[in-house]
Amino acid sequence: MLKIPNHQVAGHKAIDGILGPLIDDSGNFYKPLQNDDRGSNEVSFYESFNSEPRVPKSILKYFPIFHGTKIVNASDGSGLHPHLVLEDVASCYPNPSVMDVKIGSRTWYPQASEEYIKKCLDKDRVTSSITLGFRVSGLKLVGSVANEDDLSWQPDRKFLQNLSAEDVKLLLSKFVSSNMPSEDAAACPDRAFVEKVFGGSNGVLEQLLELKKWFEVQTIFHFYSCSVLMLYDKESLLNGKSSGGAVVKLVDFAHVVDAEGAIDHNFLGGLCSLIKFISDIIASPDDENCISNNNGTKYEH
Amino acid sequence: MLKIPNHQVAGHKAIDGILGPLIDDSGNFYKPLQNDDRGSNEVSFYESFNSEPRVPKSILKYFPIFHGTKIVNASDGSGLHPHLVLEDVASCYPNPSVMDVKIGSRTWYPQASEEYIKKCLDKDRVTSSITLGFRVSGLKLVGSVANEDDLSWQPDRKFLQNLSAEDVKLLLSKFVSSNMPSEDAAACPDRAFVEKVFGGSNGVLEQLLELKKWFEVQTIFHFYSCSVLMLYDKESLLNGKSSGGAVVKLVDFAHVVDAEGAIDHNFLGGLCSLIKFISDIIASPDDENCISNNNGTKYEH
Repeated sequence: MLKIPNHQVAGHKAIDGILGPLIDDSGNFYKPLQNDDRGSNEVSFYESFNSEPRVPKSILKYFPIFHGTKIVNASDGSGLHPHLVLEDVASCYPNPSVMDVKIGSRTWYPQASEEYIKKCLDKDRVTSSITLGFRVSGLKLVGSVANEDDLSWQPDRKFLQNLSAEDVKLLLSKFVSSNMPSEDAAACPDRAFVEKVFGGSNGVLEQLLELKKWFEVQTIFHFYSCSVLMLYDKESLLNGKSSGGAVVKLVDFAHVVDAEGAIDHNFLGGLCSLIKFISDIIASPDDENCISNNNGTKYEH
Repeated sequence: MLKIPNHQVAGHKAIDGILGPLIDDSGNFYKPLQNDDRGSNEVSFYESFNSEPRVPKSILKYFPIFHGTKIVNASDGSGLHPHLVLEDVASCYPNPSVMDVKIGSRTWYPQASEEYIKKCLDKDRVTSSITLGFRVSGLKLVGSVANEDDLSWQPDRKFLQNLSAEDVKLLLSKFVSSNMPSEDAAACPDRAFVEKVFGGSNGVLEQLLELKKWFEVQTIFHFYSCSVLMLYDKESLLNGKSSGGAVVKLVDFAHVVDAEGAIDHNFLGGLCSLIKFISDIIASPDDENCISNNNGTKYEH
């Protein structure tokens, strides 16, 4: 009854006998507990988050609903394994376009081991984390015709490594375009969905700004290696089935630590950087690298 | 004619034959150019900052005015040496209280040498930079009676190292208090000047918020190892000579690099953290660790 989700873009995937997340038909997402501290840390986070009176109600919607833990058959065929049972944030989307953005220029926390710190720091330096304050850790772009998997594009890790500001701008533009889900850098994304997905009162930007307001004052948690997940469904937008807009969720809480009296300046800085990219795309809906000619087609200049 | 400033709280001081900054009677601050890249980098920064049309006019007041470079006699007696000639930001204050806060959880920039990165990272980890997003790199608290140097307190580097959130809160409270400029942790600062210095439409908070707005959008410079300097004069505030409020300036630009398309998320995060501390002190002017008893004196509980 459990199956492999089609919207997972980062982390271990439950394919080819690997231990990975599963979903059911009731909107639940089963995330296997990792054997080291990470699994128990994430359970602890969800438990303390849910019982934390200082978290405003308006913020709860940015976190997957937590249904506890459950022992189910693991995807790698190794038998029963404990899983976190979370809300499947994509369950109402038949074929979502998804972007996973790991927030923060630093993914390590002060209390971590030297070995772990070095590993994270090395990765922060070879990706865009240090330069941009975040890195795109996963992406799935769906073509205009839904449910045709060959029209979607899911770049590999190497492609996403060390993106420049211009690269990120192009990826974010492609994320909200109806044409060409591909890695062709010369392609001119049409940004057809920029207003519906990024803009508007329910759009990604407004949601990120609401999160930003909370991060400017919350001194409860510091979120290391946590991602902002953005997802929407092209087909639902096109046929008017969706009320429009996209969903923003925070995911991956294996490395959340106590704030110890200060705001999460590392997460906030990265979040503000992502907000600036998205604001810029909304403010200039036409890709500056592309010019429409009289026939309405586009070319690079 | 050049003399040693009485308001310098961080960096090399021009005492005991050391090369350090000097001031004159015309409101100029002479900062010796360091022999390595830092000196020329800081000159380059001021030159490009002054000719940068994207910097809004409202932001210029947060930077010392740059008057070019000049060769003057060095404070260490070594003879003529090139100096940056800057506005002496304390020239109108006879005896200022000063706080130098180095902003950012990371003081190194991606292009730096491995040796430099390691040195900075080690320092960021033993100070409060990693945890709070900034560190207090210098402080001078002046007692109620001005011009009496024995009533001022200037903690050494060791005292300022590795401050907790509570320690920083106490220091910021003492900074705006009329009583006891000392390191006595049990002392209850009266926060007599919190409204005049931190609050109000010309106060430190409003100035930091104006800077924050700019840092949310500017993609020109990334400021590493740069400080927010806050200064005010107690005596002028007490005798009504000062229009009130404090001055906020950014200083130390030897490690400013090109933003390459992203906001300065590292500086912005640290700035927001400092803003949260100051907002909290304004919002709760009575130190929570101190309770007034019926006689009006205070004790710790």
